[in-house]
Amino acid sequence: MASLTDDQVRELDLWFRAANYLSVGQIYLLDNPLLERPLEREDIKPRLLGHWGTTPGLNLVWTHLNRLIRERDVDAIILCGPGHGGPAAVANAWLEGTYSEVYPAIGDDRDGMSRLFRQFSFPGGIPSHVAPETPGSIHEGGELGYVLSHAYGAAMDNPDLVVTAVVGDGEFETGPLAASWHGNKFVDPVNDGAVLPILALNGWKIANPTIPARIPREELESLLRGYGHHVITVEGDDPADVHRQMAAALDEAHDMIRETWRAAREDGDLERRPWPMILLVTPKGWTGPAEVDGKPVEGTWRAHQVPLAGTRDNDEHRAQLEEWLRSYAPDELFGDDGRPVEAVRRQAPAGTRRMSANPHANGGLLKRPLRLPDWRESAVEVVRPGASIHEPTRVLGQWLVGVVRDNDTNFRIFGPDETASNRLDAVYEVTDKVWAGELTDVDEHLARSGRVVEILSEHTCQGWLEGYLLTGRHGLFSCYEAFIHLVDSMLNQHAKWLKTTREIGWRPRIASLNYLLSSHVWRQDHNGFSHQDPGFIDHVLNKKAEVVRVYLPPDANTLLSTMAHCLQSEHYVNVVVSGKQPSFDWLDAQQADLHCARGLGIWDWASNDDGDPDVVVAAAGDVPTLEALAAVSLLREHLPELRVRFVNVVDLMRLQDEREHPHGLGDREFDAVFTTDKPVVFAYHGYPWLIHRLTYRRTNHDNLHVRGYKEEGTTTTPFDMVMMNDTDRYHLVMDVIDRVPDLGPRAAAVRQLMVDTRRRARQWTRDHGDDLPEVRDWQWDAGADPERGDSPSTTADPDTGADNL
Amino acid sequence: MASLTDDQVRELDLWFRAANYLSVGQIYLLDNPLLERPLEREDIKPRLLGHWGTTPGLNLVWTHLNRLIRERDVDAIILCGPGHGGPAAVANAWLEGTYSEVYPAIGDDRDGMSRLFRQFSFPGGIPSHVAPETPGSIHEGGELGYVLSHAYGAAMDNPDLVVTAVVGDGEFETGPLAASWHGNKFVDPVNDGAVLPILALNGWKIANPTIPARIPREELESLLRGYGHHVITVEGDDPADVHRQMAAALDEAHDMIRETWRAAREDGDLERRPWPMILLVTPKGWTGPAEVDGKPVEGTWRAHQVPLAGTRDNDEHRAQLEEWLRSYAPDELFGDDGRPVEAVRRQAPAGTRRMSANPHANGGLLKRPLRLPDWRESAVEVVRPGASIHEPTRVLGQWLVGVVRDNDTNFRIFGPDETASNRLDAVYEVTDKVWAGELTDVDEHLARSGRVVEILSEHTCQGWLEGYLLTGRHGLFSCYEAFIHLVDSMLNQHAKWLKTTREIGWRPRIASLNYLLSSHVWRQDHNGFSHQDPGFIDHVLNKKAEVVRVYLPPDANTLLSTMAHCLQSEHYVNVVVSGKQPSFDWLDAQQADLHCARGLGIWDWASNDDGDPDVVVAAAGDVPTLEALAAVSLLREHLPELRVRFVNVVDLMRLQDEREHPHGLGDREFDAVFTTDKPVVFAYHGYPWLIHRLTYRRTNHDNLHVRGYKEEGTTTTPFDMVMMNDTDRYHLVMDVIDRVPDLGPRAAAVRQLMVDTRRRARQWTRDHGDDLPEVRDWQWDAGADPERGDSPSTTADPDTGADNL
Repeated sequence: MASLTDDQVRELDLWFRAANYLSVGQIYLLDNPLLERPLEREDIKPRLLGHWGTTPGLNLVWTHLNRLIRERDVDAIILCGPGHGGPAAVANAWLEGTYSEVYPAIGDDRDGMSRLFRQFSFPGGIPSHVAPETPGSIHEGGELGYVLSHAYGAAMDNPDLVVTAVVGDGEFETGPLAASWHGNKFVDPVNDGAVLPILALNGWKIANPTIPARIPREELESLLRGYGHHVITVEGDDPADVHRQMAAALDEAHDMIRETWRAAREDGDLERRPWPMILLVTPKGWTGPAEVDGKPVEGTWRAHQVPLAGTRDNDEHRAQLEEWLRSYAPDELFGDDGRPVEAVRRQAPAGTRRMSANPHANGGLLKRPLRLPDWRESAVEVVRPGASIHEPTRVLGQWLVGVVRDNDTNFRIFGPDETASNRLDAVYEVTDKVWAGELTDVDEHLARSGRVVEILSEHTCQGWLEGYLLTGRHGLFSCYEAFIHLVDSMLNQHAKWLKTTREIGWRPRIASLNYLLSSHVWRQDHNGFSHQDPGFIDHVLNKKAEVVRVYLPPDANTLLSTMAHCLQSEHYVNVVVSGKQPSFDWLDAQQADLHCARGLGIWDWASNDDGDPDVVVAAAGDVPTLEALAAVSLLREHLPELRVRFVNVVDLMRLQDEREHPHGLGDREFDAVFTTDKPVVFAYHGYPWLIHRLTYRRTNHDNLHVRGYKEEGTTTTPFDMVMMNDTDRYHLVMDVIDRVPDLGPRAAAVRQLMVDTRRRARQWTRDHGDDLPEVRDWQWDAGADPERGDSPSTTADPDTGADNL
Repeated sequence: MASLTDDQVRELDLWFRAANYLSVGQIYLLDNPLLERPLEREDIKPRLLGHWGTTPGLNLVWTHLNRLIRERDVDAIILCGPGHGGPAAVANAWLEGTYSEVYPAIGDDRDGMSRLFRQFSFPGGIPSHVAPETPGSIHEGGELGYVLSHAYGAAMDNPDLVVTAVVGDGEFETGPLAASWHGNKFVDPVNDGAVLPILALNGWKIANPTIPARIPREELESLLRGYGHHVITVEGDDPADVHRQMAAALDEAHDMIRETWRAAREDGDLERRPWPMILLVTPKGWTGPAEVDGKPVEGTWRAHQVPLAGTRDNDEHRAQLEEWLRSYAPDELFGDDGRPVEAVRRQAPAGTRRMSANPHANGGLLKRPLRLPDWRESAVEVVRPGASIHEPTRVLGQWLVGVVRDNDTNFRIFGPDETASNRLDAVYEVTDKVWAGELTDVDEHLARSGRVVEILSEHTCQGWLEGYLLTGRHGLFSCYEAFIHLVDSMLNQHAKWLKTTREIGWRPRIASLNYLLSSHVWRQDHNGFSHQDPGFIDHVLNKKAEVVRVYLPPDANTLLSTMAHCLQSEHYVNVVVSGKQPSFDWLDAQQADLHCARGLGIWDWASNDDGDPDVVVAAAGDVPTLEALAAVSLLREHLPELRVRFVNVVDLMRLQDEREHPHGLGDREFDAVFTTDKPVVFAYHGYPWLIHRLTYRRTNHDNLHVRGYKEEGTTTTPFDMVMMNDTDRYHLVMDVIDRVPDLGPRAAAVRQLMVDTRRRARQWTRDHGDDLPEVRDWQWDAGADPERGDSPSTTADPDTGADNL
């Protein structure tokens, strides 16, 4: 590692100053971008919005990564954790020429610079963060904490990629960030790239010092070493000195990375070694105003946002801004035409080596479709509805074996220690769980390489998967239903990213983010109340309709069909909820295919309405489908004259108005299935009001009665759980009887029988610790209508037959 | 620190064995609790549910804490992070006698033991976790990650309390846990107690090894030292040896704690020192079956749940279970009557020194009401609606000065570096931000003691506040609205705790968990899209109605009234959403009082309906109230003949059916305000469908038209934001015109004027970077109806006047 010459220092500083100048210009200037005349009031934006504090540090990192990339031909991207540093990423992308390439209206000249300044944080312009609109970004950073998990996700299966992750020292305090350092225990040095964390220790948050800045340095270094890193410190406030240190630090870090790769790839040395990281200690708001109105600014929290707040109306502030801008000597950086001078321009790498133009940061460019085995070949045989039993996720696991086998470095399964618990462990026939930590003899399916990645941190799993998808690959997140709420806020940000990038022409679409939520609310026999929450669906449905999809397959084959569809889809968030416990198969492959394509439909074999029902019994979700079918069975036994239509919903979005969601059923079709005036008793997997929310505009809404989870539960038997929430078969029969008029005297007796049976079931469970035998051993009685029972068939209104999954 | 005698070891081991025996018994036995006869099939539970793996480690810790408590008269509680260790906490509580005291049906004899075993994870019995039902617990632990933040919250302002927090090594991988180690940077050694973390390194999760168990020990110790701890290691699998090590470790740890306290309290030495922690390395499932069916179990992941799965029907398993139970020598532990023998019993501390009976773990016992200054004295003067402007949260901050001043160690404000940003910084007149890290000259309001606690981790803030409340104190969590989603899952667990403990007689109620969500969706001028999400309200409303409340005060005085109410309330989650930007005052103190008591009401001064409206314009939230009032003003100007009723909603729960929420308005009252047949145009703070969900059963629901946030936004001006979401005044006027029939020809012209004005506003904003002057300078025109304008008055249906906040 050579030390820099004075000329090299001067050249690096040119870029650093140019980036800083462009950053300050974006925050303040409406006009006069090159300071060709003294700054006037009208040159200043009326509303000053932006964050200066973290920006110079980001500019320094970018400056030096460019040197490393040029000198060593490194394939590198940068993720800016302090997302408020939008001005920095935009400035560097403009200097690299990429900005003008993807946004031709923002030219690379004086006029372009003027537009670049004006648009920043300006109505109709661009956001203040390192946003989806920013070339070279896969990380928005408005919400802090995910930069390292995104970085590790990006590095997976990209063996030559160096992913630099700038971690803010405020962000450092967050939980998701604190856990995500452990990503280095899941790096395969042969097949994965490297993550280079740079902890930007500028000392301050919005209003407070940061923890890592106020503990003894040796304590901080002990912590970082404990996270598995070799720490290289760069510290100072004199640019020339810092440039020398930073160049040496990056060379040292890159040497270590190359040596780890070489040892693993050439010598087969797969032992985990410390990965390098850089501790970058520079002042907050470095090179900005030292003092404003007599108070220290540079190096304090006062530099966090806009250090000079009164520049439009306060002449002194404006003069200070001009002095600040001129301190970068813009005439040395830009020609009269506003273009960066040659000495600046040649600092940038060429073509796709520019971090702002690296295709890894625009994953849709690299995305290859998955090779999916035909799910029908993994389908279970169904001779008639309810005649056989499978564990749906275990069946899915068998199909996933083929997905893993056929897609090598293009697909991963992420999960918080639950892949086996969720019964997807068949995949271990063809892959392992990646683990860079110590391996022992009792371990099973742990290896240095693998397609399954498990850490007990939902945040980290989500961040890895996001990083993996954003760089153009595919994946699946398998999680307990209740604890997926841990990533609610991450989901928000990813959905926002998807929504925004749908509208950005130069960003091709990426693969969908697929959730498989198992171990769901109804089957927490071991874990009870704390593990029961079906509300992630509600949360997801607050996102833009064009990016979210929710599926509730009722059995094994519908789960296969659904998941095959989701893994082919693009740019969505797909939520699939499915049980893992043994449960009845209702549909064969062909029927499952059709039913899932339609999204919802009448199950003829479970209906006796002959097109004119007295009541519609509907269900969404596997356990509700079981209870609703059992209720139908009871109704047919005890009230055979009642014409019952059974409807199953697998694609929840079908319930919504077509004006609100692209999957929404037209009103005419909806009415044809749910009628315009008959009672509908709906057994739903989650919180019941969601069904009302989705259907409140429908003609028959006033007749809709929904049962679902109402936040009652404990460690108990499966049937006791549905009883606790009034979603059991007996209660559904009562609901039907209470809503269908003129049922005659027999109905009252049947109702009383249901009440009595529930009481007996409750008591039996308390006495025996198990479910009532007639519930436990219940089977769909195909004999009730043998003509239908023997050939499962699913119909829906013919107009709804389009593939809407 | 003396080493143990052999007798002491033997006595400690008696308790340890008794607790283990009782734990295994709970998991397996329906009957034959003392093994008075060989185990039969019928003695075994039909469904084996529970978690053995972590249990012996917890029993060891409890055993030794009891020794420490007895020998040194320590005031200590224990929080079990591995919540699945329910059997351990229940076993120890029973041995201490507490269990039978609070649950007299579970006596302290053979019959009680039999019931204790049977009820565990049994229908109608108790959950498998360290649940709210468990005496001595303030931490459920079903969802992992919060034990340390709960512990630090419990220790705050309890200067003599030692809070032991057992951290599971699986939990160790989670984000919230990883950040919460930094709690030791916020401990005031004079006024706070101590947290003693014990990292239970048993090596395994459900199906995988844990990260801390598979990195070199020196790397783990470096990490723990980096977290600020002095690490004392206890390691082994021979009970006698481990007993000796553990006793010495606890003595050493307690000595360090006492010395830190002494130095701070007697010598005034307030420098942060390393706090002790124990690294406890024992096998998973220690003392359980070494092998089952030829596969290793003890010391592997196979010990996680129930190590012998077939004990009911597999004779070999049952024999192995009996051997396992007899290995604890139950006849040495329990008398013929089933009572623990004297040698066991005397290990327990007395009375409230028993951890299962310590009142700190039943905070309602210790709770003292807050002394609240009269909020009316902090109210702003309002001569007429809209005549003055204040920043609501700043006004609140002034009142909080008195709350902080008058309540000393009974109240804290928690926040992720946003107390000042959310404009509550007046409190720094009377207190500081607590900070145990380095202090420098530029710091402001940082000190070793303080009532404000700030870390950039919403998870940690939430955990601290929960721990503080659960031990009987009061607090407020101030947070940006969008990022409160980070704690969605923690909120779930706390709401579940509140729901469950409402039904537990021996747990008096605790103070409410109060959220102040500011920097809300409509005013993210700096931050844009990533900072916009009003969906926490939706999330909270999925919880049990009896524990959640949501308030949207429209101005400063209503915010004061609301918050005063919330801080007095018990056992709720209160969500208060309020802007921090300068905004109009609408109601004086008296009117605010009345309006908040009613929860919603007609604002006469903004209405001209004379009791018979053509249309109802309603609003919930400060920005929507502004836009809705501006819309009313436009309607009165342009369509003066139209009779408009203006309704404001501050308590969102009032909208709901009285059968669904205790605050719900009766249908008659609701109809009196919203009419049964007139169009209602409703401007709402959040996602609009929530209002439909809350009102779908109301008579007039089909005429309800809601505007709100529909996930559109960026860094732009305040008025551009409402325009992007069609919630602006002009669009509301269009909505009214589109819905009121027979408005005559003039209406079409007015509608066109609105369309044109919106277009002009949009263009103005893009040209000038600011809002249209007529919007920016808009004021409620009191002159439009001077009789009303000069005396603000608020009415609602007289029947709704009960205090419902």
